[in-house]
Amino acid sequence: MENLTEARLSAQLQELIARISNLDEEAMSKIQDRLNSLTKPRGSLGQLEHIAKQLGGIQRTSNPRIFKKAVLLMAGDHGVAEEGVSACPQEVTPQMAYNILSGGAGINVLARQAKADVFLTDVGVAFPLEGNFIHKRVANGTQNMTKGPAMTRLEALQALLVGADVAAEKIEDGYNLLATGELGIGNTTPSSAIVALFTDSSIEDVVGRGTGIDDAGLIKKRGAIKKAFEVNQPDKTDALDVLTKVGGLEIAAIAGSILQAAASRVPIVIDGFISTAGALIAAKLAPKSTLFMIPSHGSVEIGHRRALIELGLEPVLHLNLRLGEGTGAVLTFHLVEAALHILEEMATFADAGVSEQLT
Amino acid sequence: MENLTEARLSAQLQELIARISNLDEEAMSKIQDRLNSLTKPRGSLGQLEHIAKQLGGIQRTSNPRIFKKAVLLMAGDHGVAEEGVSACPQEVTPQMAYNILSGGAGINVLARQAKADVFLTDVGVAFPLEGNFIHKRVANGTQNMTKGPAMTRLEALQALLVGADVAAEKIEDGYNLLATGELGIGNTTPSSAIVALFTDSSIEDVVGRGTGIDDAGLIKKRGAIKKAFEVNQPDKTDALDVLTKVGGLEIAAIAGSILQAAASRVPIVIDGFISTAGALIAAKLAPKSTLFMIPSHGSVEIGHRRALIELGLEPVLHLNLRLGEGTGAVLTFHLVEAALHILEEMATFADAGVSEQLT
Repeated sequence: MENLTEARLSAQLQELIARISNLDEEAMSKIQDRLNSLTKPRGSLGQLEHIAKQLGGIQRTSNPRIFKKAVLLMAGDHGVAEEGVSACPQEVTPQMAYNILSGGAGINVLARQAKADVFLTDVGVAFPLEGNFIHKRVANGTQNMTKGPAMTRLEALQALLVGADVAAEKIEDGYNLLATGELGIGNTTPSSAIVALFTDSSIEDVVGRGTGIDDAGLIKKRGAIKKAFEVNQPDKTDALDVLTKVGGLEIAAIAGSILQAAASRVPIVIDGFISTAGALIAAKLAPKSTLFMIPSHGSVEIGHRRALIELGLEPVLHLNLRLGEGTGAVLTFHLVEAALHILEEMATFADAGVSEQLT
Repeated sequence: MENLTEARLSAQLQELIARISNLDEEAMSKIQDRLNSLTKPRGSLGQLEHIAKQLGGIQRTSNPRIFKKAVLLMAGDHGVAEEGVSACPQEVTPQMAYNILSGGAGINVLARQAKADVFLTDVGVAFPLEGNFIHKRVANGTQNMTKGPAMTRLEALQALLVGADVAAEKIEDGYNLLATGELGIGNTTPSSAIVALFTDSSIEDVVGRGTGIDDAGLIKKRGAIKKAFEVNQPDKTDALDVLTKVGGLEIAAIAGSILQAAASRVPIVIDGFISTAGALIAAKLAPKSTLFMIPSHGSVEIGHRRALIELGLEPVLHLNLRLGEGTGAVLTFHLVEAALHILEEMATFADAGVSEQLT
């Protein structure tokens, strides 16, 4: 029975992946022409011009538009927390979930400013959670990955598809700019493991202090990842195997939401370190999904830069953020909208009577 | 007569500089306490927390507020343009000024998004300019600095005080978040000269391609700066001497607007390379003025990074912009406002019942 379900979900995932195609070159070329006609030196708006083109290539139009914006927050707990890898107790995960529900967390504040809606999905919190969340719990947290796989392959597939379903539902509701985000005490540990594997980095080079562990905690965290690799032998040529053995339920859901965004041709802004680990899973499952990703900030987590390079993404914000929750991604919404305003509203050389020698 | 005027303006500048004092440590300490009480790991909002504190220190309150936002664009032309240092003819300066007046330039688009007003001051355009600008022309452009000083010391003082007056007027009108910006074909050449002098850099290390000159143009530009240094022998211990000999009228006005902002305790966001050259002049005249500066983007101009380091500023946006006009600064307004929203709206640990172990 479990094998049948697994086969069905696996087929569903493959179908989703198969729907991801290229950017529309014709739309991008039209946007490039338009950008070149605007009253500025050619290319002088840098990444804003790049984002404008990307949005056109995604939406298959020379006139891309943003209607509704959402932050898809995925919450999950981590069995590895019992190894003392985090400065926080796991109880903080549900506490922060309720804080988000009541609008008091950092992401709520920044999403209000950006006129974006916040949706929190319980993919795998380890404690009871009631209220107006999206309830899609796959398990009560992962297992301790130093003792065996963090989850079963079935659970990994389920969590991936939870992310995809949530994204599909929001896209159906008219949201056409998404941000990833997460909540989950201990989740820089699986993220570091994923980043180490997919960037061929040593554990020392990618494992940072998360919410703020001390030196002793850092040693524990590195040791836990090392042990998890030894115990589980994750196969880095199989992204689902990596996710299953050393990943997290919310990380899986982030990856799923990215795949769905890509399949539905909706741009998705990738938040910090944990989201980038999810993006790596998505990219390994479906390399073209990176075409639909918009980078946000460069986190202080030391593995983040390597992960972004692997994805071919260059962060646009340098704010030394390390909060997660989608905070860096939602701040980037202002820049995405700036790119579209430029495309729509700037005068052309012809309109303004400005010499084209400016180019 | 000229000497009398110069002495009077010099006294006026000294008076302005004398009004610049320190940030309010008590307000900043209260803000730090508040930030530490919010539901996030301590310091995890990085530069946003830093900006919140800075604003409090500037406004002398634990409850800083932004009411009205303005971009102060300063326009000027450059005699050195006749040396072939720019890809554009000087006629583009007034053309772009009219484009800004009619709302079609990049800065207009981005300022509308940020709900900021744009004010363009003619400090020294070389062509007739009519319309709803702030008309404060000191000269019809600077002189060719390869043949003698770009301007007289009197003109430099006048242009500095034009910038200060415009800022004072806008602050009087209730604007309490300002951005610098500029317009002036050829102005990366004097900016590079200023940056080279104040960062003890070689010309090669700080002179870039501006709006987009080719290799031949780059050689001309470097040669022009070298010649200007030989001919004028600017004294880098005297910022006014540097400004007079190898500066620009709009650069002077930017420096003046920064000094006024600092004296009036209003934060001012520093745009790209040219604005940063103006900020260096301000900092050399009044080192404490840097306390009132908020960094914006890291420009592609190669000297920009050195200039920012000299000022102790770390850029928050990495967008490969090279348009000027205040575009990077106005994009940063979103982040400044984000910092205040965080301070005002986030729940505390006590409010939200979140374990303080998160810190």
